[in-house]
Amino acid sequence: MQKPSIPKGTRDFSPAEMMRRQYIFDTIRRVFRAYGFAPLETPSMENLSTLLGKYGDEGDKLLFKILNSGDYAAGLAPDELRQASKICEKGLRYDLTVPFARYVVQHQGEIVLPFKRYQIQPVWRADRPQKGRYREFYQCDVDVVGSRSLLNEVELVEIVERVFRKLGIAVTLRMNNRKILYGIAETIGHADKMIDITVAIDKLEKIGAEKVKTILVEDFGVEAAAADELLKFIETPGGTEGILAALDSYKGKNEVFDLGAEELKTVANYMTAFGVPADHFEIDLTIARGLDYYTGTVYETAMLDHPEIGSICSGGRYDNLAEYYTDKQLPGVGISIGLTRLFYVLGEQGYLNDRMNKAPADVLILPMTDDMGAAIETATALRTSGIRTQLYGEQKKFKHKIGYADKLGIPFVIFLGEDEINAGVVAVKDMESGEQVKVSLDEAVNLIRAGLAKKNEGKVICDKSI
Amino acid sequence: MQKPSIPKGTRDFSPAEMMRRQYIFDTIRRVFRAYGFAPLETPSMENLSTLLGKYGDEGDKLLFKILNSGDYAAGLAPDELRQASKICEKGLRYDLTVPFARYVVQHQGEIVLPFKRYQIQPVWRADRPQKGRYREFYQCDVDVVGSRSLLNEVELVEIVERVFRKLGIAVTLRMNNRKILYGIAETIGHADKMIDITVAIDKLEKIGAEKVKTILVEDFGVEAAAADELLKFIETPGGTEGILAALDSYKGKNEVFDLGAEELKTVANYMTAFGVPADHFEIDLTIARGLDYYTGTVYETAMLDHPEIGSICSGGRYDNLAEYYTDKQLPGVGISIGLTRLFYVLGEQGYLNDRMNKAPADVLILPMTDDMGAAIETATALRTSGIRTQLYGEQKKFKHKIGYADKLGIPFVIFLGEDEINAGVVAVKDMESGEQVKVSLDEAVNLIRAGLAKKNEGKVICDKSI
Repeated sequence: MQKPSIPKGTRDFSPAEMMRRQYIFDTIRRVFRAYGFAPLETPSMENLSTLLGKYGDEGDKLLFKILNSGDYAAGLAPDELRQASKICEKGLRYDLTVPFARYVVQHQGEIVLPFKRYQIQPVWRADRPQKGRYREFYQCDVDVVGSRSLLNEVELVEIVERVFRKLGIAVTLRMNNRKILYGIAETIGHADKMIDITVAIDKLEKIGAEKVKTILVEDFGVEAAAADELLKFIETPGGTEGILAALDSYKGKNEVFDLGAEELKTVANYMTAFGVPADHFEIDLTIARGLDYYTGTVYETAMLDHPEIGSICSGGRYDNLAEYYTDKQLPGVGISIGLTRLFYVLGEQGYLNDRMNKAPADVLILPMTDDMGAAIETATALRTSGIRTQLYGEQKKFKHKIGYADKLGIPFVIFLGEDEINAGVVAVKDMESGEQVKVSLDEAVNLIRAGLAKKNEGKVICDKSI
Repeated sequence: MQKPSIPKGTRDFSPAEMMRRQYIFDTIRRVFRAYGFAPLETPSMENLSTLLGKYGDEGDKLLFKILNSGDYAAGLAPDELRQASKICEKGLRYDLTVPFARYVVQHQGEIVLPFKRYQIQPVWRADRPQKGRYREFYQCDVDVVGSRSLLNEVELVEIVERVFRKLGIAVTLRMNNRKILYGIAETIGHADKMIDITVAIDKLEKIGAEKVKTILVEDFGVEAAAADELLKFIETPGGTEGILAALDSYKGKNEVFDLGAEELKTVANYMTAFGVPADHFEIDLTIARGLDYYTGTVYETAMLDHPEIGSICSGGRYDNLAEYYTDKQLPGVGISIGLTRLFYVLGEQGYLNDRMNKAPADVLILPMTDDMGAAIETATALRTSGIRTQLYGEQKKFKHKIGYADKLGIPFVIFLGEDEINAGVVAVKDMESGEQVKVSLDEAVNLIRAGLAKKNEGKVICDKSI
């Protein structure tokens, strides 16, 4: 007899967890739709040639490779067999960006630009599993491609703001423009070290300015005075207004810097027009997004109550989505919601637990006669009225039957015995109050509807769409 | 430069296709929920030990195996390397039944029986790709496990009936009970050849009675007279009533047969109580479900307009879901909706095409001034009113802008120029009629809402949930 188990780093999602996840996914999708973004899905498998070389050496190692089907080893010499590339031509999706780029180029004839799409699908990485890190997890990306308009930047901020508001999570979105960092790097004579500098700046919050300076100076050969100037500038105090003023005072020294400052200012101005509350976003010149391929606006989002969890939503603007596949410039901007961190917070931290209605049904019907006819008719009537109904058909003791409703948290039970059937009524029990009444079926529907509305006041109804 | 492509047998789902799919999935889920079924998801990968040996030799070959991560080949002799089992410990999900059985046993401490779950997830098979057959496709299963009640059989029929009614597809569900076939096989002295006999009967519709008889006689050694008796009996004419009468007349010869006949009769009687229209189901003793592991009721569902497509929904009752993992009997009953066939019919056959609203937005706002403030405010107001709104920020010629709305099928365009902003109005154009009016924002909201309601009359609104 086998002992049932699942691969390391993977998870089963129980009904209660699934309802929570469906609620979160639905909330996110609804916001994306309100802004005219359309859904896209790509296959779980991509050709390895599509995936390899896109995520660095480390990423290549973390790809899950799929064995060619059939007699994969036929005709290969033993040492050829040792090479994964000879026996695998496909791999599991590692992120949503590379498949999206591949899709846009492959289907460019059908796509109308700017193309606004969202994509919520699992990705797979052969990372060492640990608390909060899985080998299969969902990503949630939303992008506009084929557009240089800064309006998109602002709409994405508003989308983020709206998603988290609807989920009941207070966040602050911090924003920068990489052209500013690039301009400064150029000014201090280190344009070639732009990536090194952004990677170092990315560590600022974690290790502090002194250590970042050491890295800049010792590892990358930036002069001490230049490093000081850089660090002092990006840590300008005074909030959004103070920083915008500092950007103005620096103007005219570097073209790229000026462009970045102008973009950042435009986006900040639009923000007010969109009605994004001032305390929900700030300009922060220390946001760098290390190794990412962003070339303009960059975002990060922290939870006010759980800053230790890090950014739960980040993104930015890129000049070219699909340089591997096409010479055509495909500029765009996108954000990715960190679902794993979000689920962690909403689940483990108990944000949604008390607010969720996780019972699989609103009513359980317990037939007390051998003839099920009346019970079946009652069930059909309730379901047609939009009430989720289970009909209990097991031959069990009464205690066991009630225990079933209790364990699943089903809020109402209907008893249907000889007496009730003959009198044309049903006996409805409110499982929470213990109250029980005999009423007509129509009255029962009203009573249950009212009861559900009351019980669910202030609650998240995850399963309302009957 | 790479040429973008995807693996054979896999598909990208464009926004228009995704909206159609989301509509179908949502319809199915809503029906499942109305009956108190809860969602479950299992990982895409299972241990190969969970999968191997569960689908026959042919199935084992069709499993997609995943290479162990890291230095998979280290320490293996060349000929060991040739064996997939040495370099792969995981495989992609091949169906939803085996993972469900694994889940139920692994989580038996948490599960309340009877456990009613639905599961809609992709599965992967290394089949030769061909028209309508893919290597990655969705399955949709709904099961009750831990119950012997025949009520479940009837509820599943009603679920099927309701799903297809909501999708606008006329179907007939045909039903049998395998105990009847087993009883006959026993009566004619061939209980040991039950599987062979059901596999042969399964071919009846395709090859005709004469050829099935030949198979029974020549391949399986059934006597010609016994084969005739069997075939004559299962082809009893007279519809449900005629067959029920024939079953009665055969009673008393075999215990298993009698049990099956009784079960079938009970289920047929409940059907009427549930209000399933009489022309939506029939008893058909030729339904056998060949190699499946069913032990009682078996179902198949054919489309009245497209019988050539075969069964788009089938299932049955089993005595033991998880015999590989546990000695505990886990009887249950389930059905599976053939989504690939369903999508084929609804898509290629055009069932949904004209009825679907596949535009990503209801309104496109075209700002005609450099200052975007008014456009942004208008977009926010529309979105808050539940109208899906895109804001066009590109610097393009007017013709190009209108062409964008046209190509995407966006039904309304709002122009916002200097004049409109100063007058506190918006110019709304109905893209279908070409009609254009200048109205206040509030009036615009009402006008667009009314227009959408009219345009969508009788249509499937796939994206209504804003």
